[in-house]
Amino acid sequence: MADVPPPRGFPDAEYAARLDRVQQAMAPAGLDALLLTTEADIRYLSGFLTQFWQSPTRPWYLVVPRAAKPVAVIPEIGAACMARGWVDDIRTWSSPHPTDDGVSLLYATLEECAGSGGTIGAPMARETHLRMPVQAFDALRHALDFADASAVMRNVRMVKSEREIDKIRHVCTLVSNAFDRAPKLFAEGQSDIEAFRAFKLECLRQGVDDVSYLVGGAGPGGYGDIISPPAGRALGRGDVLILDTGCVYDGYFSDFDRNFAIGAADDAARRAYDTVYRATEAGLAAARPGATSADLFGAMQTVLEAGGALGNAVGRLGHGLGSELTEPPSHAAFDDTVLSPGMVITLEPGMEFAPGRNMVHEENLVIRDDGAELLSRRAAAELPVIG
Amino acid sequence: MADVPPPRGFPDAEYAARLDRVQQAMAPAGLDALLLTTEADIRYLSGFLTQFWQSPTRPWYLVVPRAAKPVAVIPEIGAACMARGWVDDIRTWSSPHPTDDGVSLLYATLEECAGSGGTIGAPMARETHLRMPVQAFDALRHALDFADASAVMRNVRMVKSEREIDKIRHVCTLVSNAFDRAPKLFAEGQSDIEAFRAFKLECLRQGVDDVSYLVGGAGPGGYGDIISPPAGRALGRGDVLILDTGCVYDGYFSDFDRNFAIGAADDAARRAYDTVYRATEAGLAAARPGATSADLFGAMQTVLEAGGALGNAVGRLGHGLGSELTEPPSHAAFDDTVLSPGMVITLEPGMEFAPGRNMVHEENLVIRDDGAELLSRRAAAELPVIG
Repeated sequence: MADVPPPRGFPDAEYAARLDRVQQAMAPAGLDALLLTTEADIRYLSGFLTQFWQSPTRPWYLVVPRAAKPVAVIPEIGAACMARGWVDDIRTWSSPHPTDDGVSLLYATLEECAGSGGTIGAPMARETHLRMPVQAFDALRHALDFADASAVMRNVRMVKSEREIDKIRHVCTLVSNAFDRAPKLFAEGQSDIEAFRAFKLECLRQGVDDVSYLVGGAGPGGYGDIISPPAGRALGRGDVLILDTGCVYDGYFSDFDRNFAIGAADDAARRAYDTVYRATEAGLAAARPGATSADLFGAMQTVLEAGGALGNAVGRLGHGLGSELTEPPSHAAFDDTVLSPGMVITLEPGMEFAPGRNMVHEENLVIRDDGAELLSRRAAAELPVIG
Repeated sequence: MADVPPPRGFPDAEYAARLDRVQQAMAPAGLDALLLTTEADIRYLSGFLTQFWQSPTRPWYLVVPRAAKPVAVIPEIGAACMARGWVDDIRTWSSPHPTDDGVSLLYATLEECAGSGGTIGAPMARETHLRMPVQAFDALRHALDFADASAVMRNVRMVKSEREIDKIRHVCTLVSNAFDRAPKLFAEGQSDIEAFRAFKLECLRQGVDDVSYLVGGAGPGGYGDIISPPAGRALGRGDVLILDTGCVYDGYFSDFDRNFAIGAADDAARRAYDTVYRATEAGLAAARPGATSADLFGAMQTVLEAGGALGNAVGRLGHGLGSELTEPPSHAAFDDTVLSPGMVITLEPGMEFAPGRNMVHEENLVIRDDGAELLSRRAAAELPVIG
C-alpha cells in the first residue's frame, strides 16, 4: 500500500513545454493571443493554484501571446500566489472595483499582446464558459476581434505529461486504499450522511488533499439518482450503495466509484454488477492509441445492451480527467476524438437495469503505447457484500 | 458545545416566498423572464443541491417567468435530483450533445416564458458570469431580447431567511468548535500540509458536510500571501499561523479565520492582532440596520490606519455570505449597500503591518433590528500562543 507522494508543483520546463504546445496550436488557427478566464486553463499555463476560485466575486485573466510568456491580469489579492508560479508579468488592480473591475487593464494587455488588428482566441464553444461578466466581454468585443479557441486548450490539455499522470495515479491509489477499507467504514443501520462522512475522513487520512466531490446513492437492490447528496436515510440490508468520488492531490483529480451490497445482494443486482464489470473490461481492451472515444462507447455499450440495459441518463460512458473532475473527450457515439498516449480518461459504463435501479462502474486509466494502464485499483469482479 | 443540526432542505413555502420576492423585483425592472445559469442562483429558486456542478461539461438552466413557477432546462442526468426539489416543470436533454447542447430547448422555454417580444433578464454586470458557452448565449441574443438582471438576484439573495441563517449559524458553530481544538491540532515542527489536514479532519468530525475552502499561511512573526495552499513548510517557533476556512452544511457556508502563534509571539504580531481585533469590534458596533457597507469599511479602516496599516491587498474588509463563500455586498468605500435585518455578512479587517507580514481577522454575523448577532464564536482578544 506504500505510495510515495510525487513532488508538488511543476518545474519551469513543464510550463514552457505546455506553452510551446499551445502556441503551436495558435498559429495555424490564426490566433495572435488567447484570453483565458477559468481556473483550469489559467492554472495550466501559470501554476496558479488556489481554492480562492470558490469566491465568485473577482474575475481572473491570463493573456497568452503568440510568441511570449503569458501575462497575468489579476486582482491584487492574488499577486503573491501568482508570483509563486511561472508567470513573470503580473498586472494587478484592486478588486472588487465599482466601475472598472480590471477591464481597462485587460483591454490594454490584450491589445498589446495581440497587436493592432490581431485576433484573440477565447473558449466559446460547447463545454466551455467565460468566467467574467458578460458586460465586460461585450466591452472587449466592441473594440477587439475575438474568435473561438475552444479546440486549442482542449487538445493540448487532453494529453497529460508524466508529472501530471503521477499526480493522478497517486490520488487514485489513495482513494483505492480508502475504498479497500469499506467493510470497516459502512454498515447496516448507518445513515448515508454518516457513511459519506466516514469515507471523507478515510480519504483524508489516506493522504488526499481534498475530497472535493463525493456523490452517491443507496437503495434496496439498486440506487436511483447518483448525483444527489445523502439525505439521512439509514442503510438497509440488501441495499446497493455507490460512492463516486473526485479527490484531489496537488490540483489533480481522481474520479471513480465503487459499489457495495449491505449485508446481502439479490440476483438482479449481482447480474447488473457483472454486466457493468464486463463492459468495463471491454472498454479497457479497446482503450488503445488510434481508437476513438466513440469506439470505447461502442465496446462498452454492446455489453450493456446484451446485459439488458434499459437506458442511461448520463449521456456518455466516461470522459477525460485531470485538473478538472471531467474533461474532454466524452465516450459517446458522437465523439471521434482519437486516443493517444498520455491521455487520462475514465471508463464509466452504467445502466438502468430495472425501473429506478441503476448500476454504474468507473475506472481511471492512462493511454499508453500498448493500451490502458489502470490508475485506479480495479474493482472487485463480483459485487462485494459488506456490513 | 452541543448544537442540534437544523433540518436539511427547505419547505415549499420558503421557495414560494423567494420566488415572490424575485418576481416583485422583476416587474419594476421590466423583465418578463429570468435566465439563471449558476449553482447558487439555480439552487436558490429550485433546491437543486448537488456537487455535480464541479463537472464543467454540462450547462444547467433555470427559467423564471414573471408570474409562474420556475422551469428547469437541464441535462437528463440531473432530472431525478431536480425532482427532489421544488420545481415541477423539468425539461431535459441528453448532454453532452455535439450540435445542440440544450440550446433549442432553452430557446423554446425562454420564448414561452417571456412571451413574444418579452425581455429576458440575466446577470451580466460585475461580480457575475454566465455559466454557459458564449456561442450559445450569442445564439439566444440573436433572436431574443436580453437585459441585465444582476440586481434582482443580488438584492433578493442578500437578505436571508431564518432557515438560511440557522444553517449558517450551525456551520459557524461547528467550525468554532474545531478552532477551539487548535492547541491539540497544531504544533511546532508540523508541516503546514499536515496542519491543514488535521484541521479538515477535525471540521468533519465536528459535523460539517465539507471543508470546501481552506487557505492560510504561516511565517516568522506574520504571514505573507493568504490564498495559497500549504507548501510543505514546517511550522516554526514564533510563526504566526492563519487558517481561513469556508465549511459547508446543507449548502451554506461559514467563512472565517483564526490566528495562532506557534510557541511564542513577538510584540509586533501581538500589536497587529490587537489592532485588527479592535477593528473588528468597531465593525461589530457599526453593523446595524441603516448603516452601509461603506460605513462598516470606514469604521474598521479608521482603526487599522491608526494601528499603522501599510496596506491591504484584499480590496475590501468583508462581504456577504450564504450559499456562496463570498456574496455581495463588499465592505469597501464604494459600496453604498444599506444593511437590513437578515443580511449575513463577514467582517474581515486585515492589514500588512510590516513588509510581507499580514494580519487578518474575520467574523460572521447576521444583521438584526438592534445590531449584529455573531454567528462565529468571537476570536480570542489576544493572539493565542499554542504548540
